Amino acid sequence: MSKLRVAVLGAKGRIGSEAVRAVEAAEDLELVAALGRGDKLETLAEQGAQVAVELTTPASVMGNLDFCVRHGIHAVVGTTGWTEDRLGQLRGWLADFPGTGVLIAPNFSLGAVLTMKFAQLAAPYFESVEVVELHHPNKADAPSGTATRTAQLIAAAREQAGSAPQPDATATALDGARGADVDGIPVHSVRLRGLLAHQEVLLGGEGETLTVRHDSLHHSSFMPGILLAARRVPTVPGLTFGLEHFLDLG
Amino acid sequence: MSKLRVAVLGAKGRIGSEAVRAVEAAEDLELVAALGRGDKLETLAEQGAQVAVELTTPASVMGNLDFCVRHGIHAVVGTTGWTEDRLGQLRGWLADFPGTGVLIAPNFSLGAVLTMKFAQLAAPYFESVEVVELHHPNKADAPSGTATRTAQLIAAAREQAGSAPQPDATATALDGARGADVDGIPVHSVRLRGLLAHQEVLLGGEGETLTVRHDSLHHSSFMPGILLAARRVPTVPGLTFGLEHFLDLG
Amino acid sequence: MSKLRVAVLGAKGRIGSEAVRAVEAAEDLELVAALGRGDKLETLAEQGAQVAVELTTPASVMGNLDFCVRHGIHAVVGTTGWTEDRLGQLRGWLADFPGTGVLIAPNFSLGAVLTMKFAQLAAPYFESVEVVELHHPNKADAPSGTATRTAQLIAAAREQAGSAPQPDATATALDGARGADVDGIPVHSVRLRGLLAHQEVLLGGEGETLTVRHDSLHHSSFMPGILLAARRVPTVPGLTFGLEHFLDLG
Amino acid sequence: MSKLRVAVLGAKGRIGSEAVRAVEAAEDLELVAALGRGDKLETLAEQGAQVAVELTTPASVMGNLDFCVRHGIHAVVGTTGWTEDRLGQLRGWLADFPGTGVLIAPNFSLGAVLTMKFAQLAAPYFESVEVVELHHPNKADAPSGTATRTAQLIAAAREQAGSAPQPDATATALDGARGADVDGIPVHSVRLRGLLAHQEVLLGGEGETLTVRHDSLHHSSFMPGILLAARRVPTVPGLTFGLEHFLDLG
Repeated sequence: MSKLRVAVLGAKGRIGSEAVRAVEAAEDLELVAALGRGDKLETLAEQGAQVAVELTTPASVMGNLDFCVRHGIHAVVGTTGWTEDRLGQLRGWLADFPGTGVLIAPNFSLGAVLTMKFAQLAAPYFESVEVVELHHPNKADAPSGTATRTAQLIAAAREQAGSAPQPDATATALDGARGADVDGIPVHSVRLRGLLAHQEVLLGGEGETLTVRHDSLHHSSFMPGILLAARRVPTVPGLTFGLEHFLDLG
Repeated sequence: MSKLRVAVLGAKGRIGSEAVRAVEAAEDLELVAALGRGDKLETLAEQGAQVAVELTTPASVMGNLDFCVRHGIHAVVGTTGWTEDRLGQLRGWLADFPGTGVLIAPNFSLGAVLTMKFAQLAAPYFESVEVVELHHPNKADAPSGTATRTAQLIAAAREQAGSAPQPDATATALDGARGADVDGIPVHSVRLRGLLAHQEVLLGGEGETLTVRHDSLHHSSFMPGILLAARRVPTVPGLTFGLEHFLDLG
Repeated sequence: MSKLRVAVLGAKGRIGSEAVRAVEAAEDLELVAALGRGDKLETLAEQGAQVAVELTTPASVMGNLDFCVRHGIHAVVGTTGWTEDRLGQLRGWLADFPGTGVLIAPNFSLGAVLTMKFAQLAAPYFESVEVVELHHPNKADAPSGTATRTAQLIAAAREQAGSAPQPDATATALDGARGADVDGIPVHSVRLRGLLAHQEVLLGGEGETLTVRHDSLHHSSFMPGILLAARRVPTVPGLTFGLEHFLDLG
Repeated sequence: MSKLRVAVLGAKGRIGSEAVRAVEAAEDLELVAALGRGDKLETLAEQGAQVAVELTTPASVMGNLDFCVRHGIHAVVGTTGWTEDRLGQLRGWLADFPGTGVLIAPNFSLGAVLTMKFAQLAAPYFESVEVVELHHPNKADAPSGTATRTAQLIAAAREQAGSAPQPDATATALDGARGADVDGIPVHSVRLRGLLAHQEVLLGGEGETLTVRHDSLHHSSFMPGILLAARRVPTVPGLTFGLEHFLDLG
């Protein structure tokens, strides 16, 4: 079987350089280009890249994707900064090249993606849901972006299912004890030396609780998701937003 | 809106008597019959039961379901002892009454059902999976039936996905340290005074882990699943095996 | 060996009636009296009680202890409502009967007592400490009294050890995300259907974390502590406040 | 206040080079020497080292300590391979220099040391105790040395306290389900990609459980223990074995 020909854009960055190593180590993938700032995009076409892994910056991602789509190179994109305008422009390009696929994912950690998905699926079946996220003490924001997003997805799933408000008889509370309120879901942020990035979704019903916990110990955790996406994107034309759509969760 | 008319069979048993109270407490359900051993099945028809919750014994379940199916009464069945023969016979009855639905569920705990489902869905995306189940020390079997079933489902999901064998460099081990082997999935059984019934599925990949944990503190945890099934079974004709098929997990 | 002769005061209450059963079940103890409201204290002396387990109300505890101390009956006290005034009065009585011991304990759960003790011992050795307490949603106060007390003990231990303030770079936070501040220790309160009473103390240092977790599933958890106290109080004259002083934690 | 003058032996090794950085970063310590293989011990005396951190090999540790003790330099030793013979020889040297202190520690992680200590202290107060240790899948031995040692300490503490055997009604078990038996304490070993080194001690009594968990994420976790020992060893003459003796756990 011939190997899938993969290029990495942003190959000198922290995540990009790991992606280079991960593609090289994968038996079914061949690294055909590893481009850094200033390298020519034409290399992608010359080397016959089938998939580009785009890990650059908001400043260069649109130019890179324009080139890829026009040359029929599928793309897996980790770069951030997406607006409705940018997504619309990208959809326009893809409309002209209907065989080409682009996946944009805010998070390539399979554990993070599955935690959010499972939280959404389970939330309508339990009376109570809360989120506890735990990070190292150098983190500037609380709650984490992932925890906020998780709570929003939980709230939306409960609203769609017509769930009742959560039971809570708290009458006397110290300020902050019951956490932050994100669309009605309490979110608690722990900051502890020795931790990295951890998140727990606690769901409770009559006589039982269900907990989904994600522990992220290293940004190498993005690699399995990036490789999975590179393998699958050639079979999914058009724009896909979110790695969860590439997982079999039926 | 008129209430759904529900009967409970086995209403004097431990689970049955809780089901009686749970149906009575639900605003959208009306308890129209609560039958114990020796009570006449005709009561179900006379009272206009739409759904029967069957929580009796393997000795009486077939007779009860025969009556229900013939009278167009949908059934939610928690009684155990199902064989292929019995299931075939039930399917035969239902073929003659195509509008009637029967749900048989080995477990009505939403937490247990979701834990198994999530374990199956996630297992192909991680290199390593192990199961730890923790129970009170009066339990006679190890691993628990639920843990064994969970491990089997995980193993099947991994085989279907073509997952590689789990990494394990253990060269020197005390007997039993690495747990029981259930279809290639290590299962560990903890027995501790003070515990009830708990299960953890641990999944690990490059740089991250995902844990799904179910804590069952009381058999009242079966009630939300029984009520959910009673509400949904009238809309699902034929035989359904497993509560997970009544949950929206798409 | 002759059995220790134990009486229970408040024997009709929820905890008291469990204490009666626990004393009866213990091979080395003999239940010689089980007094409820209105029963005569003289029974204690007539029956030769050596230890009284006092589980009544703030309204009757002082009268009961006055009688016990004067008759040389050691006491194990779970009744609440202690003030400095009341403790002073009790110490005065005990000064006149120097062989008699009284233990007052705000909490007889060995798990709760050890959690607090371990949190105090460990706190000076870690940069970060936070408390997460999790309870059923019918609880009126947040944080729980136990969590507040635990945080206070941690703060005192750190102050005594001259610990530096906890690291926390949080610059942007939703209200409540970082929990309640109890003497500088963040405390987070989760309220979830299906839970009972749970507490986690998380300690973090360079490259590692230590977690002490207590799960209380039933108020029967008070019994081992009450029996331990009954066995030990005859050998500890005077007033002792807190079950931890009866444990070998050297 | 003058700084404590500290030297590191084995300064080029993985742990040694971290120790060098940790000493340099500590405000109350001054790094006066960092010796690798072949460097002259005389440097210690010339630089006026007060404490030597010994992180070399079993082949060189005795020579290094002989020099240190003879020159009144206190030592903190992480090197392994200690036998009764070697300890006896070291005690002999120290007898001649009664003001000098040496601490040998098999583990400098405060979390690991406290977990073992707390497990020992708590074990007599609970009916059931089990150990679960979780490591990366490249580990060759199961259970880990730390888990085996922890179980032995628990068993010894229970024997000394006259604890009854653990309750366990298991009648039918798959091979290995109930873990390895270390002196009567069940120990379970989980091996999972994404994990580093983790250990949980689970204690259970009537109606409650207590869990002590240690998560080690990086060998930098040894540094706080090494620095603590360096600061304290000048005040503890003679030989001390085990970091726990330098902690205030009274």
